[in-house]
Amino acid sequence: MAPTVGFRVTHRDGAARTGELTTPHGLVPTPAFMPVGTQGAVKALTNRDLIDLGAEIILANTYHLHLRPGESLIGRLGGLHRFSGWERPVLTDSGGYQAFSLAGRCTLDEQGITFRSHLDGSPHLLTPESSTDIQAALGSDVAMVLDECLSSLATREATAASMERTLRWARRGRLRHLAIPDLAARGEVVVTNPGQAQFGIVQGGTDLQLRAESAARTVEIGFEGYAIGGLSVGEPAPTMYEIVAATAPLLPDGAPRYLMGTGTPADIAEAVAQGVDLFDCVLPTRNARNGQLFTSEGRLNIKNARYAEDTRPPDEACGCYTCRHVSRAYLRHLYLAGEITARVLNTLHNVHFYLDSMRRIRDAIVFSTFDRLRVAFRQAFSPNSSD
Amino acid sequence: MAPTVGFRVTHRDGAARTGELTTPHGLVPTPAFMPVGTQGAVKALTNRDLIDLGAEIILANTYHLHLRPGESLIGRLGGLHRFSGWERPVLTDSGGYQAFSLAGRCTLDEQGITFRSHLDGSPHLLTPESSTDIQAALGSDVAMVLDECLSSLATREATAASMERTLRWARRGRLRHLAIPDLAARGEVVVTNPGQAQFGIVQGGTDLQLRAESAARTVEIGFEGYAIGGLSVGEPAPTMYEIVAATAPLLPDGAPRYLMGTGTPADIAEAVAQGVDLFDCVLPTRNARNGQLFTSEGRLNIKNARYAEDTRPPDEACGCYTCRHVSRAYLRHLYLAGEITARVLNTLHNVHFYLDSMRRIRDAIVFSTFDRLRVAFRQAFSPNSSD
Repeated sequence: MAPTVGFRVTHRDGAARTGELTTPHGLVPTPAFMPVGTQGAVKALTNRDLIDLGAEIILANTYHLHLRPGESLIGRLGGLHRFSGWERPVLTDSGGYQAFSLAGRCTLDEQGITFRSHLDGSPHLLTPESSTDIQAALGSDVAMVLDECLSSLATREATAASMERTLRWARRGRLRHLAIPDLAARGEVVVTNPGQAQFGIVQGGTDLQLRAESAARTVEIGFEGYAIGGLSVGEPAPTMYEIVAATAPLLPDGAPRYLMGTGTPADIAEAVAQGVDLFDCVLPTRNARNGQLFTSEGRLNIKNARYAEDTRPPDEACGCYTCRHVSRAYLRHLYLAGEITARVLNTLHNVHFYLDSMRRIRDAIVFSTFDRLRVAFRQAFSPNSSD
Repeated sequence: MAPTVGFRVTHRDGAARTGELTTPHGLVPTPAFMPVGTQGAVKALTNRDLIDLGAEIILANTYHLHLRPGESLIGRLGGLHRFSGWERPVLTDSGGYQAFSLAGRCTLDEQGITFRSHLDGSPHLLTPESSTDIQAALGSDVAMVLDECLSSLATREATAASMERTLRWARRGRLRHLAIPDLAARGEVVVTNPGQAQFGIVQGGTDLQLRAESAARTVEIGFEGYAIGGLSVGEPAPTMYEIVAATAPLLPDGAPRYLMGTGTPADIAEAVAQGVDLFDCVLPTRNARNGQLFTSEGRLNIKNARYAEDTRPPDEACGCYTCRHVSRAYLRHLYLAGEITARVLNTLHNVHFYLDSMRRIRDAIVFSTFDRLRVAFRQAFSPNSSD
């Protein structure tokens, strides 16, 4: 019997909880943040960097890896872990969100999502079944079921119809996932991680009633974990907080809860307060490459002229490699000079800041002081806090 | 009395020698290769990476740092070492070569080199005196005197006239360097490394007689070390080898010899065989960013389709981080996907390969087996050896 994915809650502070997500590639203490390794690498970092930073799990994008180098190649080479050399847990998304947001000529029908590759224009069809098969070949520890990603501006009718389709797709994706061992035994699919789990995704836009219905019926299908999808897509932060607060308690207490694509450290703290366990977001890595650093005092734009001769580290309260060795003046110079090293140093800092924030959040929950930390994050990352 | 730069030969094998270059920022075992940190960082690497790789000294470009962020800023912040956090020795070039090759509207007269910044078109004048002053503010351990860089296609007359000008500039640069303590005491220049040494540069194109004259008269002026300049600028390798072989023995045995801007590991071994001690070249870092790896079996282009499913490391004989953790297949994928991480991993490998080559060269000289190593490099890096 291959090792599988499990979850248990270890401490509680209000609705916030710490837990342990066990996977075939090791244990993830939660609440956890997953740095995004879109194409099989977290941009500008090596696996050694990620280990040094204390990353316990990363996210990889099914859409990108399907298009290049393809799940067939990765499957033949033993799966994503062996291919990339990353030995800790990996979660893969379903590919749907990128097919909507990156690909060309994307159309959707009951069968699935038809799109053209943003790389070479080649036609592709992503279905609940093929997304499941691709992720089986990639061999992530957690696969996501294919869902429909809707605009936050959609009408209630459109949102309701989309939610129904997401539920039908969820049943198809779950059936396929459960059939994977038999399909693999018959040589019809490639499986590189037999203990892979599958998470369902709650949709329903900004309508609390639809969210509640989506949660109940997704739980009815039954998954190893549950994600809240369709947020952080442009809606106001209070709306997001409200939906998370209403939805998280409807998900099984004993299963991991994952808020997809969110957000700032303050957003994460708000969701942790509602009982969410897992997070991913491109903010720390993308903003690093654009010169924006997350610090204990808020956001810091390293290009700002005021840092030209500032010999302080980016964040005086931070213990990361960058902050222990590099001044704002030097980092600003490297950034303006277009040096790759600036992107490396900025990314090291931002990912450290996020992962360290999660460590502080877990500690605070254990010591029942989480609410104070949540307020501190809210103040540091309020809209007026950045320079 | 501030620590100064010194040199002693420790072992000999034919004309090849190992030595110790002592500097205000520590000792450099020679023959040594200096990774190029053009703008105050070796592209794609952090200082931690460089220390891990065993880099003992790096090169920084006076032209780039003069234009951005400027030697005034670096001087105010305590010099290049403090600014960049790199605590080991640094050599700076004079800025002349980049003024010729990168800047716009470059003109030259007896006073110096007038050029426009490649960044913003601003006018600049680089003289033997100003180059010396800029490097005093940067505080490198070894400064280079300003020389004229001539096309290898110049006539003998033009080459002779240029050599005479380089000698006149060398005298002016040396006088300025010797006057720096007094100028600093009067507050006329900024000095951040009082133990800085200055190397002269032998020119003379491809004319052995002019090279001999340039060597004799540069030595007559008297510097802490001597460089062979004006090579690796497009001339055939045998011509370069011939000039190095003829010039190196004319330089004082007790002073360090530096071959500027060279080359492949095979080129370096040939020059070591003639008694050269110091090298710099952009090949390992630039080629890494273009996907070309230096390996024990020659050059390897990671984009090559034959590596798509090759699970071997880039160089099976290599012990670097990249080769211990990453396959050709994965590196090719990251490279084709345009990932910064590919540039980091490739650079880590190539710089390791160069620095490890230097360690092997030093060992071979100590054990009097250098000639065998030289032949091995020649075979691995012959024109037919790359894929």
